Amino acid sequence: MTGIAIMGAGRMARVHAASIIGADAHIATIYDPVLEAAEALAASTGARAAPSAVEAMADPAVDAIMIATSSDTHVELLYEAVKTGKPVLCEKPLASSYDASREFVATVGEAAARKVFLGFNRRFDRGHASVREGVHAGRIGRLEQLTITSRDPFPPPLEYVPRSGGLFRDMMIHDFDMARSIVGKDMVSVTAHGSSIVDPEIGKLGDVDTASVTMLAEDGTIVTILNSRRCAFGFDQRIEAFGAEGMLVSNNPRQSGFTTYTKDAPGTAAPILEFFLERYGPSYTAEIRLFLDCAREGRDMPVNAIDGLMAAYLAEAATASLKQGKTIHLTGPDQEF
Amino acid sequence: MTGIAIMGAGRMARVHAASIIGADAHIATIYDPVLEAAEALAASTGARAAPSAVEAMADPAVDAIMIATSSDTHVELLYEAVKTGKPVLCEKPLASSYDASREFVATVGEAAARKVFLGFNRRFDRGHASVREGVHAGRIGRLEQLTITSRDPFPPPLEYVPRSGGLFRDMMIHDFDMARSIVGKDMVSVTAHGSSIVDPEIGKLGDVDTASVTMLAEDGTIVTILNSRRCAFGFDQRIEAFGAEGMLVSNNPRQSGFTTYTKDAPGTAAPILEFFLERYGPSYTAEIRLFLDCAREGRDMPVNAIDGLMAAYLAEAATASLKQGKTIHLTGPDQEF
Amino acid sequence: MTGIAIMGAGRMARVHAASIIGADAHIATIYDPVLEAAEALAASTGARAAPSAVEAMADPAVDAIMIATSSDTHVELLYEAVKTGKPVLCEKPLASSYDASREFVATVGEAAARKVFLGFNRRFDRGHASVREGVHAGRIGRLEQLTITSRDPFPPPLEYVPRSGGLFRDMMIHDFDMARSIVGKDMVSVTAHGSSIVDPEIGKLGDVDTASVTMLAEDGTIVTILNSRRCAFGFDQRIEAFGAEGMLVSNNPRQSGFTTYTKDAPGTAAPILEFFLERYGPSYTAEIRLFLDCAREGRDMPVNAIDGLMAAYLAEAATASLKQGKTIHLTGPDQEF
Amino acid sequence: MTGIAIMGAGRMARVHAASIIGADAHIATIYDPVLEAAEALAASTGARAAPSAVEAMADPAVDAIMIATSSDTHVELLYEAVKTGKPVLCEKPLASSYDASREFVATVGEAAARKVFLGFNRRFDRGHASVREGVHAGRIGRLEQLTITSRDPFPPPLEYVPRSGGLFRDMMIHDFDMARSIVGKDMVSVTAHGSSIVDPEIGKLGDVDTASVTMLAEDGTIVTILNSRRCAFGFDQRIEAFGAEGMLVSNNPRQSGFTTYTKDAPGTAAPILEFFLERYGPSYTAEIRLFLDCAREGRDMPVNAIDGLMAAYLAEAATASLKQGKTIHLTGPDQEF
Repeated sequence: MTGIAIMGAGRMARVHAASIIGADAHIATIYDPVLEAAEALAASTGARAAPSAVEAMADPAVDAIMIATSSDTHVELLYEAVKTGKPVLCEKPLASSYDASREFVATVGEAAARKVFLGFNRRFDRGHASVREGVHAGRIGRLEQLTITSRDPFPPPLEYVPRSGGLFRDMMIHDFDMARSIVGKDMVSVTAHGSSIVDPEIGKLGDVDTASVTMLAEDGTIVTILNSRRCAFGFDQRIEAFGAEGMLVSNNPRQSGFTTYTKDAPGTAAPILEFFLERYGPSYTAEIRLFLDCAREGRDMPVNAIDGLMAAYLAEAATASLKQGKTIHLTGPDQEF
Repeated sequence: MTGIAIMGAGRMARVHAASIIGADAHIATIYDPVLEAAEALAASTGARAAPSAVEAMADPAVDAIMIATSSDTHVELLYEAVKTGKPVLCEKPLASSYDASREFVATVGEAAARKVFLGFNRRFDRGHASVREGVHAGRIGRLEQLTITSRDPFPPPLEYVPRSGGLFRDMMIHDFDMARSIVGKDMVSVTAHGSSIVDPEIGKLGDVDTASVTMLAEDGTIVTILNSRRCAFGFDQRIEAFGAEGMLVSNNPRQSGFTTYTKDAPGTAAPILEFFLERYGPSYTAEIRLFLDCAREGRDMPVNAIDGLMAAYLAEAATASLKQGKTIHLTGPDQEF
Repeated sequence: MTGIAIMGAGRMARVHAASIIGADAHIATIYDPVLEAAEALAASTGARAAPSAVEAMADPAVDAIMIATSSDTHVELLYEAVKTGKPVLCEKPLASSYDASREFVATVGEAAARKVFLGFNRRFDRGHASVREGVHAGRIGRLEQLTITSRDPFPPPLEYVPRSGGLFRDMMIHDFDMARSIVGKDMVSVTAHGSSIVDPEIGKLGDVDTASVTMLAEDGTIVTILNSRRCAFGFDQRIEAFGAEGMLVSNNPRQSGFTTYTKDAPGTAAPILEFFLERYGPSYTAEIRLFLDCAREGRDMPVNAIDGLMAAYLAEAATASLKQGKTIHLTGPDQEF
Repeated sequence: MTGIAIMGAGRMARVHAASIIGADAHIATIYDPVLEAAEALAASTGARAAPSAVEAMADPAVDAIMIATSSDTHVELLYEAVKTGKPVLCEKPLASSYDASREFVATVGEAAARKVFLGFNRRFDRGHASVREGVHAGRIGRLEQLTITSRDPFPPPLEYVPRSGGLFRDMMIHDFDMARSIVGKDMVSVTAHGSSIVDPEIGKLGDVDTASVTMLAEDGTIVTILNSRRCAFGFDQRIEAFGAEGMLVSNNPRQSGFTTYTKDAPGTAAPILEFFLERYGPSYTAEIRLFLDCAREGRDMPVNAIDGLMAAYLAEAATASLKQGKTIHLTGPDQEF
């Protein structure tokens, strides 16, 4: 049984705890800045609440480390985790700024960065993964157009907007990672458009709530990403990959197979899944299992800190494109905007 | 150009006229008991209004005959048409009673009966035909269960009920023919259930408005037919063929690909097609083309008076099953109930 | 925290254990005829393995009892459980014979029988429940036709067939319960048809593998149930409720929203869920939560031993109908066939 | 009965002839540069083949004029038609160059230009029209994102490419018009991306075969258009309008409601409609009826030469954006690129 040290005892830690128990692993130690939170989670999982992160990670019963604390503490815990030489999974984002992400990868080196599993959990959604695997298996021949739609059910609280880093860094970052993982080629340009039409207050805070990005890949594939901070009918999360021999689509799964036929609504499907814990719940379980498999075998992580850096780089470029009102030509993650 | 004599100048005659013009044929003569009706249709099609059916059929410019008059006149016109030796298409039903249908086939003989195209036009619906062709091509292996659902949008006028012959002879007859054409085996038993719950007045007139029939085919295939005289969401016409290797379904086509997503209706499709002229419009065209092909080549008709008789026989047995409250074991069209 | 005594330590006990942990309850005691099995499950749940069922049930830490042993032991454990006066959930079937079911209800009385939660877990499927709730809420007006399709992905092992009691008692029993719960009226007749066409060996053992049942409810509603022991495309579990104002359908949910468009397959959906643990997994959780709610409040169980008896009664009548080749008119559970 | 002069006797003229006959109108005169073609169509419609366009238009039996000749002759015939003062319908495009379109509108004036029905027939597609009408009726609140996908089943012959004007002017022009008609606001910028990855030969000829355009409307609505010259699964024509209160989608209609369920393809729909005459066939009929209604009432045409000019303007801007590799800010149809 693989022993886990978990950093954080909040919502994501609890989500992961359930997955760990079903994956031939157990939580050995828990650290949380609020000791009582750590102790409560420890009580229901048979773990030990540790007084410090370093001590929690160092415990000999610990074979792997999971970082599920607030975003602004990720990178400092990652430096500690990397020092132990143990496999580590970190929730996204890698760091709270792009510069800090670049610095992390530069400091630990590419080899160590590839041992850090970065929790872009949408990669593990069954429908999205089927699109990626189908494209890579050549089921639609050469990929030509990739369209990703991500819309949240409702905007974040206004007070969150200023510290979010803006829509591209906070929300579209998932889609940048998804695009990279499906296309499998370098992007050569990014063009962003945005409006604040969901809530003008978001615009006053300097952000947009409705956005599109077009990216051109080095082989001519055209990537389109559509985002909105609000969607009346739920959590709209779709991918459409079009290629020479067909199209693969990941549509919104529904709550059930219930359908209503009446005079006025002659075929109404059940609601789509509401938000990320419902839609991506099974993805977390799949993610934890994959992390534990890689950890046990000492493999590079299939989604890692380099991926985190590259997604952050595209978000940075999109932010610059919107601000400058022009297409940004990409030269690599050392590019300044 | 094949010359057609058309009996009748009403709605069905006009529907067929449009199909004829597109099928390398023309209407040569028209007979209708109301001469003005014949003349009006003649004027817009370049045909000649004939004073009698016999004279219309006999015209040397006539290569084939179509009977589209009221149901109670079909069989007498058929006797005349068969005498000419020309290919003939007759709208369903063959005759206004089962006995008259039996007598017709007995009188003209099986060979002549197979030269009479009987207008079970649902056979030519693109979705239904795909089910039949798929079953016959072995796409689902051995057929095991066939389920046919037919529901009209609204019940007929009450005054029509007494002379309709009852739901099984008037409405389910299409489904009996469809079942025969898909299963391709003799039926060995019929069990009918019925209620008058759409409109109790229909029950007072001795008929049902909601019914199911189960038939067992000689090879053990189970056929289920569901009928209703009223359907709130339109003309519900579906077939489901289940077999050893899968299932083929003909669903209700919709008016368009329009779909609405709102908070309360997160995925509502466009209405289904409303009634038979809309749903089965293209089927009439396909039917006429097939009739003309067979007529030109002198072939037996793929759906003919024998099929009309056999469907009427099953309707007769279902009517008896409901009345007697028991399963009817089938011995053939000379069976008395 | 509600303490549970669980009878059995096999697959269903483990499925329930996961649901219990998430429902503010814990497993206090476990009994299994194989003590090692009880001890293994006890170790991973913090429960105590008890040496006998009676002792496990009697423990003062036990507030409610769950019976998840093999079918042939249900009824004797139920007698013991009822004696304790504690709420009890029993997996279906109530007993291994219809007579034993009748005797149980007669012996303990109707009041006690209503305190026994009977695990017809399909009632808790999200799609199926939406149909039932919609019908009861009047969303389609008066119910007129109810069609239930249940097809297993593959037939049971041949050695199971003789002790299964036959398709109607073993498999269609779920559909009889579903029909009762949706229609909410007494059934007045049952007509069964069946074939052994999936595997003729099943026929040689005296059973059928393909079946349909038509039931007429006291208010004229027509119920159709279609069963097959084998389905090439997965676990086919659908309900269609048709009424005066529309139709409610519970379709097969799919594994994801993945859809493929190619030249030969221009729109292929992801597979449906494969079998009952995948399809009805969330239903078990919902069932356990409802049982615990009722147990805590001392309420009658919404699906109980009376329902178990009535479903067994309909299965008995269907078995008799098939054997006798005729419609069975229903008089109540004291009817002999 | 409205009398029509039709210019051209080719494929589109024949398509329109069928619609005219069903719309209480008749073809009075036909002009075609190939007299035999005019005479053949005249023979089957009762029209008169006229020796010149001017003479055909001038006939006193002519109430309205339809121009269905080759694209390069449209504008000169339009000048003649406008002189007659009779209502005129012209197939798109207005003229074979953007400059010629501008000159036409400038010459005849805006009032006359609004009397010229321009045949953007996709506006009359039932699904697309439902999206437009739903948006205008406020069914999704404020429109925020509009996404139009248009993909042809296969690329045009290579020899057509040089004289097509390029993908934006030849193919995407329909989508520019659709976007304008749905959004109902001026566009303020156009950004185009394109690749030649379907067929590199197209790239060598200076055109693209895969393209996307992003337009920003004056109110912040973001419009995305995706085009491809080749689509393996048919004629992919979809619209998605997303707004504050929901989403309206026009999906690809299918050839029938036929669906196949097998082990490997557990739910495969019938093919989508193959190309424009099949997909947009009913749209032509609707277009002709609307034109005749407007003609009889002397109204401005709801889609007219001004719309033709504006769509050509957007196509011109997109072409410039691709060539210059930058966003084009729009100032109006007198803008030079």
